[in-house]
Amino acid sequence: MRGHIFNAGPSCLPVSVLEQLAQASVEYDSVGMSIFELSHRSKTYVEIASEAVQRLRALLGVGDDFDVLFLTGGASTQFAMLPLNLLNGRSADYVLTGSWSVKALAEARRIGRARAAASGESDNFSKLPERFDFDPDAAYVHLTSNNTICGTEWFEEPDTGDVPLVCDVSSDFLSRPLDMSRYAMLYAGAQKNLGPAGVSVVMIRKGFLPESQQKELPIIWDYRTHIKKDSAFNTPPVFAVFAVGLVLQWIEKLGGLAAMEERNKAKADLLYGAIDGSEGFYEGTVAPGSRSRMNVTFRLGNRDLEAGFLSEATAAGLLGLKGHRSVGGLRASLYNAVELESVQALVDFMAAFRSRHA
Amino acid sequence: MRGHIFNAGPSCLPVSVLEQLAQASVEYDSVGMSIFELSHRSKTYVEIASEAVQRLRALLGVGDDFDVLFLTGGASTQFAMLPLNLLNGRSADYVLTGSWSVKALAEARRIGRARAAASGESDNFSKLPERFDFDPDAAYVHLTSNNTICGTEWFEEPDTGDVPLVCDVSSDFLSRPLDMSRYAMLYAGAQKNLGPAGVSVVMIRKGFLPESQQKELPIIWDYRTHIKKDSAFNTPPVFAVFAVGLVLQWIEKLGGLAAMEERNKAKADLLYGAIDGSEGFYEGTVAPGSRSRMNVTFRLGNRDLEAGFLSEATAAGLLGLKGHRSVGGLRASLYNAVELESVQALVDFMAAFRSRHA
Repeated sequence: MRGHIFNAGPSCLPVSVLEQLAQASVEYDSVGMSIFELSHRSKTYVEIASEAVQRLRALLGVGDDFDVLFLTGGASTQFAMLPLNLLNGRSADYVLTGSWSVKALAEARRIGRARAAASGESDNFSKLPERFDFDPDAAYVHLTSNNTICGTEWFEEPDTGDVPLVCDVSSDFLSRPLDMSRYAMLYAGAQKNLGPAGVSVVMIRKGFLPESQQKELPIIWDYRTHIKKDSAFNTPPVFAVFAVGLVLQWIEKLGGLAAMEERNKAKADLLYGAIDGSEGFYEGTVAPGSRSRMNVTFRLGNRDLEAGFLSEATAAGLLGLKGHRSVGGLRASLYNAVELESVQALVDFMAAFRSRHA
Repeated sequence: MRGHIFNAGPSCLPVSVLEQLAQASVEYDSVGMSIFELSHRSKTYVEIASEAVQRLRALLGVGDDFDVLFLTGGASTQFAMLPLNLLNGRSADYVLTGSWSVKALAEARRIGRARAAASGESDNFSKLPERFDFDPDAAYVHLTSNNTICGTEWFEEPDTGDVPLVCDVSSDFLSRPLDMSRYAMLYAGAQKNLGPAGVSVVMIRKGFLPESQQKELPIIWDYRTHIKKDSAFNTPPVFAVFAVGLVLQWIEKLGGLAAMEERNKAKADLLYGAIDGSEGFYEGTVAPGSRSRMNVTFRLGNRDLEAGFLSEATAAGLLGLKGHRSVGGLRASLYNAVELESVQALVDFMAAFRSRHA
């Protein structure tokens, strides 16, 4: 029986999409083979990929002023490709808001010069930094829009002046409308709001890449290689791109990004409300102004009850609630595909657990 | 209706595996979610991945003297990771047998020093080189075991003396037993004999990686990162690894690599026999001693008939027979999962086409 899936990623996908994937696993659209066997040079796949690109642009309200790439290797590969392609002898600024941005900075420093322009580390990343020391000559400012581990999220980007803003949107991409005029580049691993693990979306504003490089880049890690070849320089992860296309259609059908935001706000409000209204039985770990709608992190006032909470929740079909191993506690990830009824089931369980243990 | 699938990659998969994938797309093994939603940190996935590693070692008859990695980015990413990790100030030798090995050398030269130790270019890569000029001080010799575009395959590796042999086995891996004592490293994109596009297998003999690096490597492109974290440093392509595991089970059930070789030999013999016995109506493009069992490349004596051959074959459900765009002609890829009955159907079609047009 299907449970309520609160996984932090890979994460819940829409049931209707899963059914389409199952169908295509056997035979795709009368082409005589399954989606796994489809050539990436076939007209069928080229259309699948190009429709996904168009759909993504339409949802975000951008035209072809952004190149859209489907790459592999996740956000962690972008941590390296970004400075490799963009530093070009310059320095970049990183805003540190948790484990992922710290990793992004560490990787950039293997490749060139990069500095922390802000950090929430002194608050254990439980709130977003408010003071910034931006270098006006930086090649870019790097931001992580949502922090899956500590449960914070930016709803208003810091002002970087004339310095281009690059954002790792892996864990809240397409969960709400974005002011795309603010961004020079976005990237996201698919396995939260976009599809299964195994593909990343990278959007690069035309004109952002340096016109020439100080040093020849490896071909496979040069964004220009993939732009020139429409993400098919080498064999793309056909199935994962197909799945992303289905998820984009699902978002479209539900009303686009404004509808996603409404849906995600309702879910987050319901759960944060239950935590805040529990008289300290449950405790949010993040200051209210910094709270993520995607990853709701919380603890039990009595830490000793957490293991029991988890095992009873799992038995009740509420899956994936364990906090990240680096911070412990509990975490409910409420990505796009998680239904309000799943959050209601969690809130009901929390109330019942509390009445048994208060 | 399912056709006969001769795609060069992504390529034919066993029908029983496709059915298992369809099933797991909806719910995997009573874990309350689909395989796409499964966390890569879950016990379930960790077991899936580790069983796939053990199965692969068992099929190849190696123990843990090889580290086995599941990475993304295909062989083209290995073209860059290999020299980045192994050159370490030294030079490497490349054996050029077609487009893929030429690309591998070009990428290595972006990263450090590398040279062509042999080349079949003067024969248009229609046969394997017989003369080698190996550098005894090379960090490694790089070989491409099977050449999908020109249709050649090595059945006996050149003697590289004490220089470690690294082989891109993307397009014939697991199609026959391998003398693993010959190799320091193997890598393969999955989308031929192993599974769907989106994952690569990399096998590195313990002790082959340099103990220290001249220059710090980017974390994500350092093989040691992935060895240390059992291929889960960052989110792996869960579904693709699962699919590879199913294909490995299928190979096991059919009798392992010796059985695969027998099966593949029978298919290749049948098709080459039909070509060679056609009195020049069909022409093999490769010298008999160099012919690939995986990719059978051929032409029609009368080139003008090729377009008609292709469209009639497609109409008859014989799919994916168009030669690579860089060389034209025809190509039937006979990877592990292609059944003998599909090759028989192709051979029957070829005979009928010939009798209509001879």
